Amino acid sequence: MSFEKLKGTRNFAPEEKILRQGVVDTLKKSFEKYGFSPFETSIIEKQDTLTSKYAGGEEILKEIYKVKDQGDRALALRYDLTVPLAVFIGLNPTIKMPFKRYEIGKVFRDGPIKAGRLREFWQCDVDIIGAKGMLAEAELLTLASEVFKDLGLDVEIKVNNRKLLNGIIEYSGIKENKESAILSIDKLEKFGPKQVKKELVDKGFNDSDVDKVLETFSLKGENDDVLKELKELIKSDEGKVGLAEVEELLGYLKETKSDVTLDISLARGLAYYTGTIYEVFLKDGSFSSALSGGGRWDEMIGKMLESKREYPAVGISFGLEPITEIIKKKKNGKKSVSDVFVIPIKTVKESLVFSKKLRDSGIKVDLDIMGRGISKNLNYVNSAGIPFAVIIGESEVEKKIVKIKNMVQGEEKEVSIDEAISIIKNG
Amino acid sequence: MSFEKLKGTRNFAPEEKILRQGVVDTLKKSFEKYGFSPFETSIIEKQDTLTSKYAGGEEILKEIYKVKDQGDRALALRYDLTVPLAVFIGLNPTIKMPFKRYEIGKVFRDGPIKAGRLREFWQCDVDIIGAKGMLAEAELLTLASEVFKDLGLDVEIKVNNRKLLNGIIEYSGIKENKESAILSIDKLEKFGPKQVKKELVDKGFNDSDVDKVLETFSLKGENDDVLKELKELIKSDEGKVGLAEVEELLGYLKETKSDVTLDISLARGLAYYTGTIYEVFLKDGSFSSALSGGGRWDEMIGKMLESKREYPAVGISFGLEPITEIIKKKKNGKKSVSDVFVIPIKTVKESLVFSKKLRDSGIKVDLDIMGRGISKNLNYVNSAGIPFAVIIGESEVEKKIVKIKNMVQGEEKEVSIDEAISIIKNG
Repeated sequence: MSFEKLKGTRNFAPEEKILRQGVVDTLKKSFEKYGFSPFETSIIEKQDTLTSKYAGGEEILKEIYKVKDQGDRALALRYDLTVPLAVFIGLNPTIKMPFKRYEIGKVFRDGPIKAGRLREFWQCDVDIIGAKGMLAEAELLTLASEVFKDLGLDVEIKVNNRKLLNGIIEYSGIKENKESAILSIDKLEKFGPKQVKKELVDKGFNDSDVDKVLETFSLKGENDDVLKELKELIKSDEGKVGLAEVEELLGYLKETKSDVTLDISLARGLAYYTGTIYEVFLKDGSFSSALSGGGRWDEMIGKMLESKREYPAVGISFGLEPITEIIKKKKNGKKSVSDVFVIPIKTVKESLVFSKKLRDSGIKVDLDIMGRGISKNLNYVNSAGIPFAVIIGESEVEKKIVKIKNMVQGEEKEVSIDEAISIIKNG
Repeated sequence: MSFEKLKGTRNFAPEEKILRQGVVDTLKKSFEKYGFSPFETSIIEKQDTLTSKYAGGEEILKEIYKVKDQGDRALALRYDLTVPLAVFIGLNPTIKMPFKRYEIGKVFRDGPIKAGRLREFWQCDVDIIGAKGMLAEAELLTLASEVFKDLGLDVEIKVNNRKLLNGIIEYSGIKENKESAILSIDKLEKFGPKQVKKELVDKGFNDSDVDKVLETFSLKGENDDVLKELKELIKSDEGKVGLAEVEELLGYLKETKSDVTLDISLARGLAYYTGTIYEVFLKDGSFSSALSGGGRWDEMIGKMLESKREYPAVGISFGLEPITEIIKKKKNGKKSVSDVFVIPIKTVKESLVFSKKLRDSGIKVDLDIMGRGISKNLNYVNSAGIPFAVIIGESEVEKKIVKIKNMVQGEEKEVSIDEAISIIKNG
């Protein structure tokens, strides 16, 4: 019998899982430093709940995995971590606000399978429910800036504001179908002004309005300069509110020395967001998709719960797949987590005791359990990328020493057990 | 609209998730110290693969969640982490042996829902593929002993061997239906000899054989004494091999100072195991289910893959749900991961800078983003169980100090920023 892996699913062998886990650990550490607590929702949920009117867009609903149980109940697999969060908030009306949680978990989409589009993938979401001000956004973007510094990735964090975006569109003379215009403008960076102009004219927008739109959106420069120019352009109340929010946010981010760029053409899935939006890109341009993104979504929870209560919300999501892809190119994957491999030569019991001692001091130890000879063992250690090997023969036991081999330099020496521990710990 | 949580699923609010994550972190740390590397398989798989003849027992197959995708493919959700591991091994015939991996992930069962039986739950599995000797078991049981020490749980690790078990049964005169007899004997601890005798006689076993079986299985005492007695009883070749294996294993575990008890009536799901078996119980008897268990399963992978190649395998699984249940009773859950909560009083920018400084030094900081007053903030800090609050007003900024309040002792003092960092770090 032969098995084939189901198309659109993957196993992650240690070599890749070690990298992924490293990224997740870095994320978690930063999330917690910013006062976000871990949280977990179930993967299986009622179909009704996940397909509720305001939960996801049409596109997503089509891609929900539907499941029936033995009791013939209509169930489904979650397709994001946002809807389950909204449901949790609805089920816990007395929960203390602000509610700051992160969730790192698998989500499922039954979409067309292509490169980089799997049936299941991880989402790493950080959200604040219950806080209105720009301080919430400032915390999230300071966090994002720290995460990418910790990951060793040089990124550009782009910020915009949906209210500001509406204000700019209005200034250009477009009063109707603003959302449709914004969706085209979102493509400026990718396709250039010529193609976007064609798209807008094809959509029926007035030629001179389109020219003014494109001119306005070509506005670039230092954040302060862009803000200054916008102050002269923006006339609508909504636009002014958006501009004030951006200014407040950029002020906070200056204090935390978080480098962000105001990019007024950034749009990001408009149906959902109500204010600040942001996306993070690799600076060197070698990876075109966003590594992280998010924004303010003040209305969804209230609408979903059909509640008059306000549920201001703002969040950021980190893409485990793109981040790991990039780090994989920069770093050689390790096939083993171990710091050292212990090879007993007729000294199984003493080697067990030695290994225990190293483990008790926090060292990650692998031990030959196959009874192989030295050279076969050293091949294994080499191919697994374990940095040290320790050989314990009968004469070593007698002399109360061990032979330690640095697998990178190839150097071998005889040392005491305590010396071995300190050599391994110092890498 | 109101939502109800699907019966048989749960959300874990931070209070509970922090505890669960603490357990998982302890497990991971120990797994890696014993040279096991992280690994991940997909949740969705082909139904054919998961229901293959040797994969799971009848009972489990009934409980598989079946899923169809848009292409009408017959898919399913994994119900354990063992079958996906076996499939991975089959798909990677050149993988280096021994293959030592751990996987911590969710599995799904569509069974009857009752207390403690959810539709989805975590499994934490550690396995070694490709190693035959008792040294593999010794590593796993030393690891188990360390895990529970680290978790602060006083446990009894019970060990037995399937070959030994067969030997004992044979000694008692039972030559046929040994498995059925063993399943009854497995109930000795729970139901006592009287009921087990009735069951065995009802199953048609000879009355005097049953008496001899029960007498033999009442054998208890120090490991060495039990071994000595068994050596006189066991005559069959299989039994002798089992006895030698147990003796070798107990010898290794003495070296690593891992306290285990030879319990000859331990049986544990027999269809699956081929040699050593073990289960871990809470010593004080306050929790009747096993917290961990496993054993040697040398035959399954070869059978599943219909391969003549041998795939010796041995593993141990830790129950996240029972372990967390027990720890929950001993420890008060924290509602927040934060070490300190910062309260700006008209000093938002300075408080952002202060928070950044603390975070850069590794402290977990929550910051008031609601613009609340001191007493409302202190209530929040109190209910979240955060140990310190720092108050920063304009006069504090001027004097370059902060007010720090120990929330447990209620004591408040004015200190420099560096002093605040050291106070929080020292808890």
